[in-house]
Amino acid sequence: MTTHAGIVGFRGYSGIELQRILSAHPRTSPWLLEHRADSSAVPQPIGHAGPPRIPCTPQAVAEAGITVVFLATPPEVSMELAPPLLEGGVRVVDLSGAFRLRTAETYRRWYKEEHTQPELLARAVYGLPEINREAIRAARLLSNPGCYPTAASLVIRPLVQAGVIRRSAGVVCDAKSGVSGAGRKPSLKTSFCEVAENFSAYSILDHRHVPEVLLNTGLDESEFTFTAHLLPIDRGILETIYFRAEGLAGAADLLDVYLKAYAAEPFVRLYPAGAVPGLHAVARTNFCDIGVRLDPKSGRAVVVACIDNLVKGAAGQAVQNMNLMLGFDETEGLL
Amino acid sequence: MTTHAGIVGFRGYSGIELQRILSAHPRTSPWLLEHRADSSAVPQPIGHAGPPRIPCTPQAVAEAGITVVFLATPPEVSMELAPPLLEGGVRVVDLSGAFRLRTAETYRRWYKEEHTQPELLARAVYGLPEINREAIRAARLLSNPGCYPTAASLVIRPLVQAGVIRRSAGVVCDAKSGVSGAGRKPSLKTSFCEVAENFSAYSILDHRHVPEVLLNTGLDESEFTFTAHLLPIDRGILETIYFRAEGLAGAADLLDVYLKAYAAEPFVRLYPAGAVPGLHAVARTNFCDIGVRLDPKSGRAVVVACIDNLVKGAAGQAVQNMNLMLGFDETEGLL
Amino acid sequence: MTTHAGIVGFRGYSGIELQRILSAHPRTSPWLLEHRADSSAVPQPIGHAGPPRIPCTPQAVAEAGITVVFLATPPEVSMELAPPLLEGGVRVVDLSGAFRLRTAETYRRWYKEEHTQPELLARAVYGLPEINREAIRAARLLSNPGCYPTAASLVIRPLVQAGVIRRSAGVVCDAKSGVSGAGRKPSLKTSFCEVAENFSAYSILDHRHVPEVLLNTGLDESEFTFTAHLLPIDRGILETIYFRAEGLAGAADLLDVYLKAYAAEPFVRLYPAGAVPGLHAVARTNFCDIGVRLDPKSGRAVVVACIDNLVKGAAGQAVQNMNLMLGFDETEGLL
Amino acid sequence: MTTHAGIVGFRGYSGIELQRILSAHPRTSPWLLEHRADSSAVPQPIGHAGPPRIPCTPQAVAEAGITVVFLATPPEVSMELAPPLLEGGVRVVDLSGAFRLRTAETYRRWYKEEHTQPELLARAVYGLPEINREAIRAARLLSNPGCYPTAASLVIRPLVQAGVIRRSAGVVCDAKSGVSGAGRKPSLKTSFCEVAENFSAYSILDHRHVPEVLLNTGLDESEFTFTAHLLPIDRGILETIYFRAEGLAGAADLLDVYLKAYAAEPFVRLYPAGAVPGLHAVARTNFCDIGVRLDPKSGRAVVVACIDNLVKGAAGQAVQNMNLMLGFDETEGLL
Repeated sequence: MTTHAGIVGFRGYSGIELQRILSAHPRTSPWLLEHRADSSAVPQPIGHAGPPRIPCTPQAVAEAGITVVFLATPPEVSMELAPPLLEGGVRVVDLSGAFRLRTAETYRRWYKEEHTQPELLARAVYGLPEINREAIRAARLLSNPGCYPTAASLVIRPLVQAGVIRRSAGVVCDAKSGVSGAGRKPSLKTSFCEVAENFSAYSILDHRHVPEVLLNTGLDESEFTFTAHLLPIDRGILETIYFRAEGLAGAADLLDVYLKAYAAEPFVRLYPAGAVPGLHAVARTNFCDIGVRLDPKSGRAVVVACIDNLVKGAAGQAVQNMNLMLGFDETEGLL
Repeated sequence: MTTHAGIVGFRGYSGIELQRILSAHPRTSPWLLEHRADSSAVPQPIGHAGPPRIPCTPQAVAEAGITVVFLATPPEVSMELAPPLLEGGVRVVDLSGAFRLRTAETYRRWYKEEHTQPELLARAVYGLPEINREAIRAARLLSNPGCYPTAASLVIRPLVQAGVIRRSAGVVCDAKSGVSGAGRKPSLKTSFCEVAENFSAYSILDHRHVPEVLLNTGLDESEFTFTAHLLPIDRGILETIYFRAEGLAGAADLLDVYLKAYAAEPFVRLYPAGAVPGLHAVARTNFCDIGVRLDPKSGRAVVVACIDNLVKGAAGQAVQNMNLMLGFDETEGLL
Repeated sequence: MTTHAGIVGFRGYSGIELQRILSAHPRTSPWLLEHRADSSAVPQPIGHAGPPRIPCTPQAVAEAGITVVFLATPPEVSMELAPPLLEGGVRVVDLSGAFRLRTAETYRRWYKEEHTQPELLARAVYGLPEINREAIRAARLLSNPGCYPTAASLVIRPLVQAGVIRRSAGVVCDAKSGVSGAGRKPSLKTSFCEVAENFSAYSILDHRHVPEVLLNTGLDESEFTFTAHLLPIDRGILETIYFRAEGLAGAADLLDVYLKAYAAEPFVRLYPAGAVPGLHAVARTNFCDIGVRLDPKSGRAVVVACIDNLVKGAAGQAVQNMNLMLGFDETEGLL
Repeated sequence: MTTHAGIVGFRGYSGIELQRILSAHPRTSPWLLEHRADSSAVPQPIGHAGPPRIPCTPQAVAEAGITVVFLATPPEVSMELAPPLLEGGVRVVDLSGAFRLRTAETYRRWYKEEHTQPELLARAVYGLPEINREAIRAARLLSNPGCYPTAASLVIRPLVQAGVIRRSAGVVCDAKSGVSGAGRKPSLKTSFCEVAENFSAYSILDHRHVPEVLLNTGLDESEFTFTAHLLPIDRGILETIYFRAEGLAGAADLLDVYLKAYAAEPFVRLYPAGAVPGLHAVARTNFCDIGVRLDPKSGRAVVVACIDNLVKGAAGQAVQNMNLMLGFDETEGLL
């Protein structure tokens, strides 16, 4: 029997990617949940209508037999829609930043807005399977990680746990993202002529994804420097992460930290010492690819990680979490 | 009277840019010096033939009245051509890496090849006007800086001189360049389908531009971590530079270091504290644009610098140097 | 003495290009005329403020000594601003479609809006110098041509005049434009992720530039098929124009039609028979480049024309027209 | 039981696409056949080795139990490899142009080379399923269509058969292709800096795909004008096809021609009259999307067709043909 999975925000880039993945998934079929009227109809080929479309109301959701809903919506819309859906017995996978932090205070500081559902923060389960798999299986409200924190946390957390970072020198994460990470709403900043043949940094030292990385890795804010950059491409995140290593005799030792941490992980791929991934390697996949370089004499260490921001950084990871929540094989529909 | 300026390597991207700048320069006219036969003729509009083209021989150069020659060639070709040209009394501006380092040993280590003209290393003048203006005026053999070192040195040198870097934590330079920096020779790495919608790191910790930055800034190799990345754009370099600041109360103090260093510089532009430049700001200009961010509590500091790799990073700076060498106004033909 | 030239719409792509050209023009200096408040301030380097900015009122324009104003505005704004400026004795160069057609009826049909200044249609001079130079010199209200019609008219008009088109087979113009042609206002259609790695046709058979081409060439609507396409690039228009030739023995004969028509034109460049231009050849120039192919047996003829839509297709041609209107050399500031 | 399918030329863009499709295909597994040594090894993630790789010899192919081989090779290599493979009892699907035409004379004229296996021309079956399905099922040597002819033939053939083209006015096919269509071998023409922000026409009137379209449609060479253009994108072909219609009262009539021709076709999608597809609609799919516009008064007709040149234009169609040849469902592995 097929699981009916609802998508709110199905016109956005994460929503479109969810449609793609869930349509090909052997155990689910997508339903489009219309939250707000939208006239931006694109012409469709005759006889290729796409998934069924119904209003996003508790009644319509129940009638359609939908048991899990993906919210590919801004935080304020997720805060509005999550409570009634949960009350209706539906599992919710939220792709926004609404439920990623632990306190309303932290949320206010980084998102510059009030949290309207602070009591849900304690109930939400943070959905980075590689660090939180067991809790995810039991989640009713799943908070899907941010795109930048997914890669950064997978890189930094094992290093902190292995104690190989010289903490006093700090960790630098120089992150670069494709434009789809900024969403589909038109703006000057994401207009073709402003982005093409251009490259720029933004949110230096104050990106809202920073506290998420701190929570996942155990670093203190003063130890972590994060800069985001906008790449003139559609999709993909590459993070170049710098630290000073302690107690490592060579790149093989650094690679070994990851081999131990991720030996059994289906969606983390490691490169031979010295080799690093590029974005083409992960495009349209749910993989996080990691490669390392190290100068053992000085301890200068560089780790490069790549994900597709719309897959492992959003829709793919959301489906990975759904698979865990519904007892499916974790990789179903994702390989 | 117009100065006749020869260009060897006029079909490469730096050479094409030199043609563009020298053609519009009020005091020079370009001559194309044919070093090797090349059949890659592009159709030209009728009656728009371009600059005169002559063989690159001492005799032809002398007959044409050429007094300065730009070598937009690979290092081994520059080593071959510089001696006879200098002997013929011509001033030489070399855009390759042949004469940027001080010893044949350092050259061998970083360029993985023997230097065939080691005695010229002592005679070559390093052409970063902002740090070496007086020596440049008297140069006969001018070594034009590398693209990455131009921006990195302009950012880091004043910080070292002002003593505001906590040296033990090191300096990280995360550099991103457009594809024209790799030259015009066809290769898989610079093929459209390999570069478009892609992004990748290369030469991590061992880029040949590293020793040049160390010479310019006084940093030790163990203090400097450099990674290059390939941007899917034609031209432009953006460097995000990280360090731990000491003795700075705020971003304004950091900006002040640059205001003092570059108050009189025609080709360095600074941004108000907190604002940073993007590549569009410097495209097709000879400017190096610099912006700063600082968290005074932790000392985390980020400086963003942008140049056009073909202008301030190559042909433009070469003409800036020529202006100084020939006693012209330094900005002639460059604003 | 420098001519003060005002620009309304200076934040749009044509307006930015006008700033660039007029700033480098030896006989003019640009003034930015603020028509509507706009908060989209981009950070500027310290000490590089750009041209002076004043309100777009008759009084402010008069006080600033502005004698020519460029309207890089939508048609409805041009219709609003042109009358008071003309009344104030200022010459007006309008880059919109407001005054390109001859009757309010034609305007209504193609622009789907009422013309609010129909009496100005008779006073406006159409500014394609290659076909209308003398009238342009005397113009007070100059209507700058559309980007597509500039290239199409320069290609088709000489063919019609030479009588070499088999009219019954019609003329096809397959036109492709970079995204800047759609203006700077954010929209989904010009968002990076919608345009990159994409290509599409629009306004098939009903583009508002069609009547302009008919007026310039003498073709009847039933003889002319026009399709526009959106290229994933910033700037440039390439038109591939198809017709059946009559009375031509070979490509040289076809080229000869253009050699005769444009021998003395400074901004039309022709290619040897068989060779055709690409967009790189005209980027950031005021040239229209033309190349031809012909199969003499069947009469199948193909002409390829390229312009930079923001230069010869907008700002550059506007300055060319201004040069004529003010008695300057026609090429001043444009080579 | 899984069919073992060999791929020669697996490093090229069509070969990579074949790997992708055949790996996900439920009834096949790919084997990489090494024809020529190649040192361009790309770093692979640890434990993700890819398909098995064996020499391309009759013995190795037989030992591996390979029963179908895809030749994603240049024509001359296909001519060399096809005979021994066929002799060994293997079915061959050739993606080159080697076997698409019917006579060695035609081949010589358009490919400018001698055909070395003229006797195979009669045995090869042309693999455009929509026009040749039954013959394909029985093929031993299958010649996969060219990318441009696939879309052009699907558009033009039904029009010719329905008799709605005014033949005297001819048919124009203005075709635009992404860069992957030019193959993976590095060349200046496909270098990033030459292609990005550029657009150009090539092979005007003499493209080698022309005779293939003539064979498929029944048009005479004098009736068909074809121009190819290079789009600055990775993949996708859009063709804008122009003709003068006879006997059609409106766009619905034109659409009706296609509805009748392709009602049962799984890989041709039609758009409502007036709407046309863009390249994003077909990216990474095996669909050919078609939309129409018509001015009934003058008969001016425009048809827009889109395919992914690497899928329906190469690897996807090759697998569609393999499905037919092996008695699988035609859509297996392609939806």
